[in-house]
Amino acid sequence: MKNVTLEEAARLLLLYDRVAVLMHKSPDGDAIGCAYSLCTALRRLGKKAQPYCSDPIPDKYAYITERLAPQTFEPKCIVTVDLADQQLFGDKLECFKNKVDLCIDHHGSNTGFAEYGIVDASAGACTQILVRIIELMGVDIDPYIADAIFTGITTDTGCFKYSNATAASFRIAANMIEKGAQSARINRVMFDTKSRERLEAEKLALASVRFYCNGKIATISVTKDMLEKSGADESDTEGIASIPRQIEGVKVGITIREKEDGAYKISLRTTDDIDASKICAVFGGGGHKAAAGCQIKGSAGEVEKKLVEAASREIESKV
Amino acid sequence: MKNVTLEEAARLLLLYDRVAVLMHKSPDGDAIGCAYSLCTALRRLGKKAQPYCSDPIPDKYAYITERLAPQTFEPKCIVTVDLADQQLFGDKLECFKNKVDLCIDHHGSNTGFAEYGIVDASAGACTQILVRIIELMGVDIDPYIADAIFTGITTDTGCFKYSNATAASFRIAANMIEKGAQSARINRVMFDTKSRERLEAEKLALASVRFYCNGKIATISVTKDMLEKSGADESDTEGIASIPRQIEGVKVGITIREKEDGAYKISLRTTDDIDASKICAVFGGGGHKAAAGCQIKGSAGEVEKKLVEAASREIESKV
Repeated sequence: MKNVTLEEAARLLLLYDRVAVLMHKSPDGDAIGCAYSLCTALRRLGKKAQPYCSDPIPDKYAYITERLAPQTFEPKCIVTVDLADQQLFGDKLECFKNKVDLCIDHHGSNTGFAEYGIVDASAGACTQILVRIIELMGVDIDPYIADAIFTGITTDTGCFKYSNATAASFRIAANMIEKGAQSARINRVMFDTKSRERLEAEKLALASVRFYCNGKIATISVTKDMLEKSGADESDTEGIASIPRQIEGVKVGITIREKEDGAYKISLRTTDDIDASKICAVFGGGGHKAAAGCQIKGSAGEVEKKLVEAASREIESKV
Repeated sequence: MKNVTLEEAARLLLLYDRVAVLMHKSPDGDAIGCAYSLCTALRRLGKKAQPYCSDPIPDKYAYITERLAPQTFEPKCIVTVDLADQQLFGDKLECFKNKVDLCIDHHGSNTGFAEYGIVDASAGACTQILVRIIELMGVDIDPYIADAIFTGITTDTGCFKYSNATAASFRIAANMIEKGAQSARINRVMFDTKSRERLEAEKLALASVRFYCNGKIATISVTKDMLEKSGADESDTEGIASIPRQIEGVKVGITIREKEDGAYKISLRTTDDIDASKICAVFGGGGHKAAAGCQIKGSAGEVEKKLVEAASREIESKV
């Protein structure tokens, strides 16, 4: 992949009249914000442009998607956004494999699968790169583009809570609000809304919280039985993984989710100097320092015991 | 009260060598951020300056308070920050009543109790005003002042979630991060940390959630019994008031907290076009459009029934 500058990426996009913009499967706010802001900008320039994704876009992003009527055309330029690896294309985008002209991404792990690419791992959200390319293409940021860009930044930074929300993230958010982004409405939909099923599942899961290692480790369990009783699905329970590490004094928060096949999907969240990816590596998993995951087979009791032992060792090694 | 400009406020502060800075009782992140950033700036200029508050500063703000050693002196200039009304002085600051030289505030409801005042209701946090005055006094923003200013903005805007987080709020936050504010650490302490007692109380309260009016109204109860069982105190349960309105489809979220004297303290949170203050006014309370409160006496069942009836009427009037 040949690395290009922001200016070169903008010039390249200006060359083509029919552009397909690909998102990763299970699209999140940043991927959606990137694809829809770019397609809107390209259409403003009189081009045909269409976002593509293997999975449906969740309803809560309707305020972004409903403002871009679908277009059908034979693309002359294939662009990926917020997409680190072609393995994330999903079934419906298989046909685009090894045909990507331009890759715009913020994952340091990007595999360089496109002909041209711009990868800026310092950007908290990929929309932070997109907004600059859109401006360089000479398109004014309108309220619709501003909503899409703001959505990408706020969802990828946990509503500006995490360390990937840099000064640049805040500054671009300020600009988007001035351009008309409905910041408070977007944040309410993304961070202040729970389904009744999610609430019910949370209530059941809270009863399973257990503490170990003088309160430095907390575990929470989500069983198939809880999902059945609450009517919640996998996506409803994702927020639950953040609960144990939020508890005062907890350095390692462990979420144990029972899977269909009897195995357990583990999410770890850590604080301070405890390396979550190191603990998960013991079980063949991985991730980042503060958030990692793995899968373990066994009985619920065994799985919890193994995890607590590995986490205790890591905590003790830091004393 | 004579209204002054930012420049005049800065010039006034530069005139005095011994300054007392008063916070409101039950101090929050914005009040603390204002008082400590201003006192730090004044000390950098060689002056004596000390924050005062009737109540102790909560431990979670230690990263701000511990870096300013206490000073004892006879103040020549009394300043209030983030303080709308002398009734909020609390017992220990009684002696300063009607002696305030300069009032710096962002509450539109400010009663104008000082000789000079600057009140900017468009500022999401009062620290947004302070940072400009500090710069106008010619003091460089160091990482300590940046932490204090950032704390004020993030706590008063709910981690940049609410509509009072304007473009200016985001832009000043960006500047503070560049000046060294530990944004992610501060946000974790303020928004991602729960006491075990709070978690326990939440678990008990969640079991009390009830829905009315086709799911448009949700109630949650916090009883004395729950506080006893969980060991939680009043401050632990404050976050619970945000739970019912977060539930999908809910337009009016009602939190009913049992008080010592058998009466109930009610918190209302609403969405869309439902006016919380109008519903609370029925019971002699008040507040803002999206958040209001009141006190009601009676049995738990009666209180809930009255509230649901008043909320239903308001919802139906909007159909």
